[in-house]
Amino acid sequence: MTSELTIHDLAGVLRTRPTVHLGDDVVPGWRGALATWALAHGLEIAERDATLAITARPDRTAGAAWVHSPYAGIEHLASALPDDVLLTRTTGTMPQRIAEYVLAWVLAERWQTARYLADSASGTWDPADPPAPPGRNGAVVIGTGTMGQAIARALAATGHRVTGLSRSGRPDDAFDDVLPFAQAHDAPAPGGSGTDVVVLALPHTAQTAGLITPQLLRAFDGVHLVNIGRGSAIRTDTLLHALDTGRVRHATLDVTEQEPLGPSSPLWRRPDVTITPHISGRTLPSDVVAALDEALTQIRAGVRPASAAARDRGY
Amino acid sequence: MTSELTIHDLAGVLRTRPTVHLGDDVVPGWRGALATWALAHGLEIAERDATLAITARPDRTAGAAWVHSPYAGIEHLASALPDDVLLTRTTGTMPQRIAEYVLAWVLAERWQTARYLADSASGTWDPADPPAPPGRNGAVVIGTGTMGQAIARALAATGHRVTGLSRSGRPDDAFDDVLPFAQAHDAPAPGGSGTDVVVLALPHTAQTAGLITPQLLRAFDGVHLVNIGRGSAIRTDTLLHALDTGRVRHATLDVTEQEPLGPSSPLWRRPDVTITPHISGRTLPSDVVAALDEALTQIRAGVRPASAAARDRGY
Repeated sequence: MTSELTIHDLAGVLRTRPTVHLGDDVVPGWRGALATWALAHGLEIAERDATLAITARPDRTAGAAWVHSPYAGIEHLASALPDDVLLTRTTGTMPQRIAEYVLAWVLAERWQTARYLADSASGTWDPADPPAPPGRNGAVVIGTGTMGQAIARALAATGHRVTGLSRSGRPDDAFDDVLPFAQAHDAPAPGGSGTDVVVLALPHTAQTAGLITPQLLRAFDGVHLVNIGRGSAIRTDTLLHALDTGRVRHATLDVTEQEPLGPSSPLWRRPDVTITPHISGRTLPSDVVAALDEALTQIRAGVRPASAAARDRGY
Repeated sequence: MTSELTIHDLAGVLRTRPTVHLGDDVVPGWRGALATWALAHGLEIAERDATLAITARPDRTAGAAWVHSPYAGIEHLASALPDDVLLTRTTGTMPQRIAEYVLAWVLAERWQTARYLADSASGTWDPADPPAPPGRNGAVVIGTGTMGQAIARALAATGHRVTGLSRSGRPDDAFDDVLPFAQAHDAPAPGGSGTDVVVLALPHTAQTAGLITPQLLRAFDGVHLVNIGRGSAIRTDTLLHALDTGRVRHATLDVTEQEPLGPSSPLWRRPDVTITPHISGRTLPSDVVAALDEALTQIRAGVRPASAAARDRGY
């Protein structure tokens, strides 16, 4: 569904069959807010076969002409839904939250938060070897979508020179430079001695799985790598090798290849790896309501919603 | 020494007696850079009675017409030097460093860094109760000088509405609002439910010692208090009471009443207090050289240096 004609048809279906289904994966705390929104817009709650399904589960979308994901990641829905179903997603304040998470952990690592928290807990006053300015201010953000742009702005506001890597290499205002993935290991700009921070902000697609290869990592030296996209972007063994050889000095991972990360993973208990349990991009119910509101208004006006997923690309 | 006539006289003394003394408190790693600077500007190194003394120790300033502090804090020099001695100080990149320290610890507390570092070290995946947006974005910076302004800019760039408190209450571009100290506990703006962060950026003077009273703290509720100025601004027992009554939910202290903080201090080992050993405002040798360079150029031009201390106010 990519033409305005089809959006026009969907607007018609919404008029003649104004029904919405809340998938049973929608958390109880959100159901009230979503039901209130539906009623306020003339949509009736239906147990099944509704025009609009609000769910992240493909098996709860039967009969829907429009599926809205309460979350930003839509890889499971994108591959499962028929082509003529409109798929929209919730972004909301998530990009700003994710950008703040990245900034928090970049600065936590730079200011040796782990060391001083331990000293504070043990009663140790040790002013020797305090945190020093890193001496290089380059940041590389891999993935230049909504998340990557917000991260780039937060890093630029704290004195970083930010290079983006994307499929197209198309310039974007949020970045000082953007290069295509294919040039990452050739170009001097993103790697070398100037880069202190590398952020992975990639969705999971067939193209991004394993995109961060040992070859690409050879462009960097002693960087802090932060992954807030999807764990599939870098294989655990690739990351461990990059840590052991010094390409990466520290990794902060909000996403991992398997989630939850199993207790036997070698990523646990390393002082040079920080794991957080997929907490950076928490969606709020108000974000879902705002996303639905905007999408419905645009559909009723015959316009393709800005929150529609790029189905062919898987995000 | 506040008149341009006296600066003119000092310029004359520098011409007829171009000598500089490096106090023995100047760390060995800095002496080479400072000696190189002196020679490049036609100043001869003298063991005593030099026109310019570079030192933080009043007992190393005999005979000097100009004393330059390698650090920003000059309370000991300000009270000890004769009135006709020019006192300048080093600010350098310290305000930006201090602002980054404040941002690092504000975000570390908000993103529960201590919790996730502990979980990561113990192999615990616990996604329950993730960090949530604070629901209020107010920050109050007490002290609106060079340090306070840099902190205000860093907090504004990360979405905070920043109120300054100062002696005069004079408006400043770096702040959304500035109020006089005396109005702190009366005014609705700085305290109440909107303030999430309170930063103390005060020098040590007779007026600022103990300025943060229990009465002033009653303007706040559940705030994160960060002190990067001087430990004398808040008494330890006042702070402990504010923590125990919930006025302050967490305190991050880079400065304390006594330094080093004694091993028996009740501030150690509390999960709601983080101590760092006076590391936020580290001065670099290049900062000292740049400050001296600027001051010498201004003196030779007959202009009072921008880095001259406000001797009558003690900073």
